Amino acid sequence: MSGNSFGKTLVLTTFGESHGKAVGGVLDGFPSNILIDLDFIQSELNRRRTGQSLFSSARKEDDRIEILSGLFEGRSTGAPIAFLAQNIDHKTEDYAALKETYRPSHADFTYEQKYGIRDYRGGGRSSARETLARVAGGAFAKLLLNLRGISVISYIKQIGPFGIPGDFILHGLTEISKSQIGCPHPETELQIIDHLQKMKSEGDTAGGIISCIIKDVPVGLGEPVFDKLQADLAKALMSINSAHGFEYGSGFPCAATKGSENNDIFIKKDGKITTRTNSSGGIQGGISNGNDITFNVAFKPVPTLMKDQESVNKEGETIILKGKGRHDVCVVPRAMVIVEAMAALVIADHLVRANL
Amino acid sequence: MSGNSFGKTLVLTTFGESHGKAVGGVLDGFPSNILIDLDFIQSELNRRRTGQSLFSSARKEDDRIEILSGLFEGRSTGAPIAFLAQNIDHKTEDYAALKETYRPSHADFTYEQKYGIRDYRGGGRSSARETLARVAGGAFAKLLLNLRGISVISYIKQIGPFGIPGDFILHGLTEISKSQIGCPHPETELQIIDHLQKMKSEGDTAGGIISCIIKDVPVGLGEPVFDKLQADLAKALMSINSAHGFEYGSGFPCAATKGSENNDIFIKKDGKITTRTNSSGGIQGGISNGNDITFNVAFKPVPTLMKDQESVNKEGETIILKGKGRHDVCVVPRAMVIVEAMAALVIADHLVRANL
Amino acid sequence: MSGNSFGKTLVLTTFGESHGKAVGGVLDGFPSNILIDLDFIQSELNRRRTGQSLFSSARKEDDRIEILSGLFEGRSTGAPIAFLAQNIDHKTEDYAALKETYRPSHADFTYEQKYGIRDYRGGGRSSARETLARVAGGAFAKLLLNLRGISVISYIKQIGPFGIPGDFILHGLTEISKSQIGCPHPETELQIIDHLQKMKSEGDTAGGIISCIIKDVPVGLGEPVFDKLQADLAKALMSINSAHGFEYGSGFPCAATKGSENNDIFIKKDGKITTRTNSSGGIQGGISNGNDITFNVAFKPVPTLMKDQESVNKEGETIILKGKGRHDVCVVPRAMVIVEAMAALVIADHLVRANL
Amino acid sequence: MSGNSFGKTLVLTTFGESHGKAVGGVLDGFPSNILIDLDFIQSELNRRRTGQSLFSSARKEDDRIEILSGLFEGRSTGAPIAFLAQNIDHKTEDYAALKETYRPSHADFTYEQKYGIRDYRGGGRSSARETLARVAGGAFAKLLLNLRGISVISYIKQIGPFGIPGDFILHGLTEISKSQIGCPHPETELQIIDHLQKMKSEGDTAGGIISCIIKDVPVGLGEPVFDKLQADLAKALMSINSAHGFEYGSGFPCAATKGSENNDIFIKKDGKITTRTNSSGGIQGGISNGNDITFNVAFKPVPTLMKDQESVNKEGETIILKGKGRHDVCVVPRAMVIVEAMAALVIADHLVRANL
Repeated sequence: MSGNSFGKTLVLTTFGESHGKAVGGVLDGFPSNILIDLDFIQSELNRRRTGQSLFSSARKEDDRIEILSGLFEGRSTGAPIAFLAQNIDHKTEDYAALKETYRPSHADFTYEQKYGIRDYRGGGRSSARETLARVAGGAFAKLLLNLRGISVISYIKQIGPFGIPGDFILHGLTEISKSQIGCPHPETELQIIDHLQKMKSEGDTAGGIISCIIKDVPVGLGEPVFDKLQADLAKALMSINSAHGFEYGSGFPCAATKGSENNDIFIKKDGKITTRTNSSGGIQGGISNGNDITFNVAFKPVPTLMKDQESVNKEGETIILKGKGRHDVCVVPRAMVIVEAMAALVIADHLVRANL
Repeated sequence: MSGNSFGKTLVLTTFGESHGKAVGGVLDGFPSNILIDLDFIQSELNRRRTGQSLFSSARKEDDRIEILSGLFEGRSTGAPIAFLAQNIDHKTEDYAALKETYRPSHADFTYEQKYGIRDYRGGGRSSARETLARVAGGAFAKLLLNLRGISVISYIKQIGPFGIPGDFILHGLTEISKSQIGCPHPETELQIIDHLQKMKSEGDTAGGIISCIIKDVPVGLGEPVFDKLQADLAKALMSINSAHGFEYGSGFPCAATKGSENNDIFIKKDGKITTRTNSSGGIQGGISNGNDITFNVAFKPVPTLMKDQESVNKEGETIILKGKGRHDVCVVPRAMVIVEAMAALVIADHLVRANL
Repeated sequence: MSGNSFGKTLVLTTFGESHGKAVGGVLDGFPSNILIDLDFIQSELNRRRTGQSLFSSARKEDDRIEILSGLFEGRSTGAPIAFLAQNIDHKTEDYAALKETYRPSHADFTYEQKYGIRDYRGGGRSSARETLARVAGGAFAKLLLNLRGISVISYIKQIGPFGIPGDFILHGLTEISKSQIGCPHPETELQIIDHLQKMKSEGDTAGGIISCIIKDVPVGLGEPVFDKLQADLAKALMSINSAHGFEYGSGFPCAATKGSENNDIFIKKDGKITTRTNSSGGIQGGISNGNDITFNVAFKPVPTLMKDQESVNKEGETIILKGKGRHDVCVVPRAMVIVEAMAALVIADHLVRANL
Repeated sequence: MSGNSFGKTLVLTTFGESHGKAVGGVLDGFPSNILIDLDFIQSELNRRRTGQSLFSSARKEDDRIEILSGLFEGRSTGAPIAFLAQNIDHKTEDYAALKETYRPSHADFTYEQKYGIRDYRGGGRSSARETLARVAGGAFAKLLLNLRGISVISYIKQIGPFGIPGDFILHGLTEISKSQIGCPHPETELQIIDHLQKMKSEGDTAGGIISCIIKDVPVGLGEPVFDKLQADLAKALMSINSAHGFEYGSGFPCAATKGSENNDIFIKKDGKITTRTNSSGGIQGGISNGNDITFNVAFKPVPTLMKDQESVNKEGETIILKGKGRHDVCVVPRAMVIVEAMAALVIADHLVRANL
């Protein structure tokens, strides 16, 4: 019941199914009198659009956003901002065969069990097409963050078995933008592209890890004890389709360390108290400490394969699913902007909550 | 503002500071007419008590729970259940020295910046003593789960660099209970105990990873798209002090796999549709599918060391923090029951939401 | 921040301004697998449409509802139901003059002060056009109530100084439907029509009171102590534009009575425990008791007059506002369906909450 | 499920039953670094205590508040403030007879039906003793309001059939404090005292109306469209035991007026834009406009009589309820501080929400 809203003060509600009329959302609690750069919002949506690389689905949607409310003469009014993008390129017939079958590692089975009814066309509500509304909402959030000098940056850390070595340090957005897939480490990028081509030719798919850095966050965001900043980020990121893991700061590897290695020693630098290292990932006691907020999100491989898979139909009879339709080889490149959007929504929500 | 409540239909609100009068909570939305086993609740609290092993703090609290409301003749009435445990063994003088200094990787700095005031005695509200209320709330949740045959089991997967090998399969609670620290793999247990003794003698601390399995969850828990079961679990677990990572099912390692390896093939078994493998960790599309829900939580090493550390005081002047007070060498053994409590609260909340 | 959602389990979020592109809403938490009668929903919207009587605004909107999501093959899927109606008959030029002035007893001044920006066209977000989305949401709620045999009925109790005498008893819907304005007491109806014609000719407006009865509500709706059924009804009804009072059961007049007069004596009737009288308005201790839920809502006269009024402009200079534009003489006839919609949303929300 | 919390940013959760161990609450979201005047808080609690006048229950509770958390060195820390008052003067035996019977116009029947279990001692959770926690929470809220120069004043407008004439204007707190029952109109006060004595001697009870004025509220509180200030006030006030009606500004009588009579003409006064009259009760479009916020709340007569009443037992058999126990003749004098508390909580919540 009513799980389609996110945030406490800046609240995004999304709606829409893969093959319904439209996907969209309502963003409530957005501060008034903010100049809205619609081109920026559209450009964010374009980053998650299909059909942009060899490795993404061939479905053609222009994902043109239409704003229905909440703006006046180019500025936000404090009223809820509703927006949508029409669904155009339905190929519903591609899915008719799936009416009676459950695709492995998809939501077909659980949706049917939970709701007693299932819009099987393209996964219906469980489709990643819903993330379009997240990206739109996140783009509004980024406009707020920009006004405060906060930036949200993501890059591909790993795809398949190929990951950036551990001592890598990102020096800036330029490095990311030089990569056609968002991986700022050239050798790893080449390995990844090779791997994706191999997966595509095999009809198989790849998982991966996205790293995200939020820069110049003011001290004081996060509301202990349950709405700690890392807890809200974890929820936000783990609510993205296919996400299987979240870690921040020193993450899972910190389990192996000693306190004396993992601790961030306080120092004074440029007249401000900060820390020498950033194992804390910019968050201490659930509250931002002014350092970069850093986290990783792991994504599973796309479950839809372009090769035969065994499954069952509603009656539990074994069937063979043929690989067809239009699907990504790997969601990770398109997921970067979704990761950023969810992170931006969390930070913006906490900025409004803390009135910072 | 108001981040001290967790859950949507079964809501736990906690209160209390490390060295205040009491810590406690209010559990609202608990179904009526449920027989409450107070001994069980106390036994859960005893599992997180200090002073029980060589590696935990020597602070002596009996953590005796007192129920103030919501029960009548041994049963829940549907009214909010308030409970508390008095704080007894304050050694506030231990903390006076910390009034002006910020302990590394603690919440001292961020609390002071956010609130402009700080109860520095034992970390105040940021102390892990708050988790007592979570364990109490979680114990009530477990009573609900038990009625439906659901169990929540945790064990230590790793402490410091010593972890259970990847092909390990847990066969039951007995294996865990045979271990004095909750690690069901005897060789790893020995390595861990050695490591903890070494850390203690060095005045250092250790991190670790807890694995959790929730068994016999009905199909249908979780509310897409934001309140997916894994998202709510992630938030719950990442809100625990020192947690730095959360993964479920195939977790971070799934990033390296192919779809054909990670996919869970549907099969019919004993007349029911289930899956051959469980990379999905019991959750598909954000909804439980009836399989075991499996997840891991990584904890950083305890930041309080029994040896000197550099830090700064409020003025930003460098100081040397002496290691003293009563602290755990590793939180992981005591955190097991906290992990279970948060997991139980999520599952119980979703049971009530879905009316299952 | 984020005040545009209503309900806890069945949540309606509305959006849209008087002269924006569209008004609409998202209804989240609606149970799945419910057959949706779109003609009924449209017929409810038609009841609040302008241009239907001599006394309502001449603005011509067809208020045609478009459903964007949440339905599949005519049934609800459990996904959020988004809907909208385009705004067609903008006469924005009518409002240009109001850019710099504050209309008496409107929201112009407070919106401008609060938000620092104001969509002055037709009142923007503060316009009663927003209630279209409430009526649509309420229509969905009524579909749920109908399935459980619950009906929501409203009638005009008073307009201007002319009210139905106190000993009036409604015998059924037919009486209401016989009236062209929803007043089931023929003599009062005539007085009201006379009064409205007089007001119209004077360029003045009238207030009024709507009575509402909710029949066949199961015992057990309402969540003490803050979400008592009457409290949630009060909030819902008082959130309607121009509402100035809410009372239930014996209402304000009960203040003058004795306990022995106001008390509802329990009796057994047809094998069921019920009460001899219904001063409690169907609610005891915040929980429905199975009797008719009865309440009244008072509405102020429409503040827009067709005659000159004094006011001030932004600089505080006195100006004379000319009466022009298209406005209702009295909102009460059109507000009946809005009152019913808000009541239906409350009851449906509590049905879902209580799983009844 | 979980209806025991009130507010969105400043959230009060209450707990406790009439004859349980304690009643209390947790106030979360209270700003940090506010000096807390505990004597003031206790003095507010004393205003609702029993045993203070001829017309209130003889139950003797000292209602001594104990603060468990959230304060440090006399100031709020931003952590949740938990508080309680022990229940002392249980006369549980008074209620044993009620185990099997339903008192007229009480919550006995509905609680038993809803929850399947009932703490029948003194009404359990449905007892007005719960309002102690509201008064404590409201006292904290008043401390916040005081810092911003906002005051909340209530007086008795009517008890039984005796009310202050319509043209009455309150000139200040002194008038109220001169009255032993909180009625600032001496002739009406005398009539009321006579009436209460008559009711007491008859074993009967009286209803009444409380007027409330909130002075010096800043412009801009209230969040359209559902969380309008009047809507949140209505919910808050209608959630008080025995409340049967709420109206603000010109209230129910405005239904009889013309727009030209009810409209508040904007004027400039002392350099500020304000209105000549205040039919709007200080709220326009759901947002405070800087004028006095004025509202009335109607209370039903106490349902417990000191004379015989007919009722039924659980089996539906007719029984005669004897009048006994310790009860108020009229709740209205003690309810004044409860009305103020709920109003203060609403205003404080909206101050925090709007960051004003």
